[in-house]
Amino acid sequence: MSDFSAACPLPLRDYPHVLLAHGGGGRLAHELIDTLFRAAFDNPLLAAAHDGAAFPSPAARLAFTTDCYVVRPLFFPGGDIGSLALYGTVNDLAMCGARPLYLSAGFILEEGLPMQTLWRVVQSMAAAAKRAGVSVVTGDTKVVERGNADGLYLNTAGLGAIGHGLWIAPAAVRPGDAILLSGDIGRHGIAVLAARAELELESSIESDCAPLAEPVQALIDAGIEVHCLRDLTRGGLAAAVLEVAQASRTGARLDEPAIRVGGAVRSACELLGFDPLHLANEGRFAAWVAAPDSERALTVLRARADTANAARIGSVTSSGRASVTIRGTLGTERVLDMPSGEQLPRIC
Amino acid sequence: MSDFSAACPLPLRDYPHVLLAHGGGGRLAHELIDTLFRAAFDNPLLAAAHDGAAFPSPAARLAFTTDCYVVRPLFFPGGDIGSLALYGTVNDLAMCGARPLYLSAGFILEEGLPMQTLWRVVQSMAAAAKRAGVSVVTGDTKVVERGNADGLYLNTAGLGAIGHGLWIAPAAVRPGDAILLSGDIGRHGIAVLAARAELELESSIESDCAPLAEPVQALIDAGIEVHCLRDLTRGGLAAAVLEVAQASRTGARLDEPAIRVGGAVRSACELLGFDPLHLANEGRFAAWVAAPDSERALTVLRARADTANAARIGSVTSSGRASVTIRGTLGTERVLDMPSGEQLPRIC
Repeated sequence: MSDFSAACPLPLRDYPHVLLAHGGGGRLAHELIDTLFRAAFDNPLLAAAHDGAAFPSPAARLAFTTDCYVVRPLFFPGGDIGSLALYGTVNDLAMCGARPLYLSAGFILEEGLPMQTLWRVVQSMAAAAKRAGVSVVTGDTKVVERGNADGLYLNTAGLGAIGHGLWIAPAAVRPGDAILLSGDIGRHGIAVLAARAELELESSIESDCAPLAEPVQALIDAGIEVHCLRDLTRGGLAAAVLEVAQASRTGARLDEPAIRVGGAVRSACELLGFDPLHLANEGRFAAWVAAPDSERALTVLRARADTANAARIGSVTSSGRASVTIRGTLGTERVLDMPSGEQLPRIC
Repeated sequence: MSDFSAACPLPLRDYPHVLLAHGGGGRLAHELIDTLFRAAFDNPLLAAAHDGAAFPSPAARLAFTTDCYVVRPLFFPGGDIGSLALYGTVNDLAMCGARPLYLSAGFILEEGLPMQTLWRVVQSMAAAAKRAGVSVVTGDTKVVERGNADGLYLNTAGLGAIGHGLWIAPAAVRPGDAILLSGDIGRHGIAVLAARAELELESSIESDCAPLAEPVQALIDAGIEVHCLRDLTRGGLAAAVLEVAQASRTGARLDEPAIRVGGAVRSACELLGFDPLHLANEGRFAAWVAAPDSERALTVLRARADTANAARIGSVTSSGRASVTIRGTLGTERVLDMPSGEQLPRIC
């Protein structure tokens, strides 16, 4: 669980829980916005108290993205819905090769949510925004009746500046490209599952929830010819590789022993029957780079603490009937396929 | 109810309802996105199938905003959650004096939602986007278990281009400014209430839900010195005037007979004990303009069908103890105050 100890600036004795009126257009809603949200996300754009934020355009090219967050439970080892919503959108911008700058935050609160819970989530978002170097510049709050939102849901949208001339998109991937992975996989999925089921796993596994803009920027600054980037959220590494293959009409061959899975995650997967390739991550990405740049890209990533375990895990091939294959530890090759749904709903 | 008759591109026989798997990272989620969302919001940026949309910056200054939508019921006379979510964010951008361009759409769907309902909402959003001249360029879908979302919630965020040198914000309002209202008030609130309660009102009242960017642009193009703009959503006209007064440390004097309320809305308010000043609107705005420009601004607005009934409803005063007052039909003046909550939750 996150530990945020600053006292809630709204008097909890008066408002121990979120009321329907906190989502109305009246005094209570204004108090919530002025006292709680503006205090946490303090910045001049938000302080303008307007219907939106206005600012000079930060670059000639922009990236724009959004995600909703419905993770259950709200708090899990290594993160919570607040940091998840912040980093999730920061990471989607990073995957466009953009420097994340401005975020919006939309809250759907359930009547009766403890105000202290909301305050912890907001503090966590504010801390994550600081770490990622972004500002939450505009927002909205709605409150729905008890039983209609499972505590709280969050949406963030984000705007980033693209400062390079690369074409980073699934369609830019070419046969021969190297596929790099930024670190070990599966921790977020298992951490949320364990928190949900109150599982007593042998060792506690923390979510990998983290911002990815800096390692991406390091690759771009080093002049690496990056063709595509994907953070490995819902559907995990498998879905990312399959999606990019489909969108770029290429295939891929992965090398399973090169894909790092921590011992605790591996044990949990064996116990619970999960495949780490399909587990969600919130601080890991794959990069498709021109093959000649592959070693240099790994050097750049390995020089950073957050991507020290980066590895080349495969290559892009020409499309074939079984377009994405993976060579296992015993050398046998199998076809990687997209599951119909997901192993675990409400993971982000 | 909106009437959208195009057949749902997802085979309803196979998927009559939204499943948890439609929110996962797997095949069903991809099918939903590719077949339903991309078909409806068809544009090249969305087609890139990336984690976000990348595009050239549309202007030297930008506006960015977001809103969540939890209106109940999903469909009401004159609109639905889809058109509401589209116009709501378009209008928040317009209130920054920006030309709305790019929108994101975040869907939180409840397991079991009829696919046909989702399709109607998406068609309505797409039609509203076309009318407002904006593109939905990025999105996200989550599915929560039955009983956790009351059908569906929506979030939209939006990006707009600011093409003028005006400072449009509450803090720009000055004593002496004229306060203009773009048309009659109260229809959205009563329309949603009537649909929710299945009230048999004497005459059917339709929501005023509509995009506001064009009349705002007309004011700016005519060189009107606009100081502030507010759409009259939650909290209605009263909250907008009180908020702006508070943020600009000014007062205001309103003239009640100048505030247009349709006969059917007035009857419904008398019947139900509502005050039209506090009712939500989704296609009405107030403008604070320099007094010498007031008549010219009204001429500009009245020349348009959607703001033909625009009127000057009051003036900005120096701040006093009772800072916002309203002179009633009998000439008596009363203080306008912010209610603690709202007359009607889940109105937008």
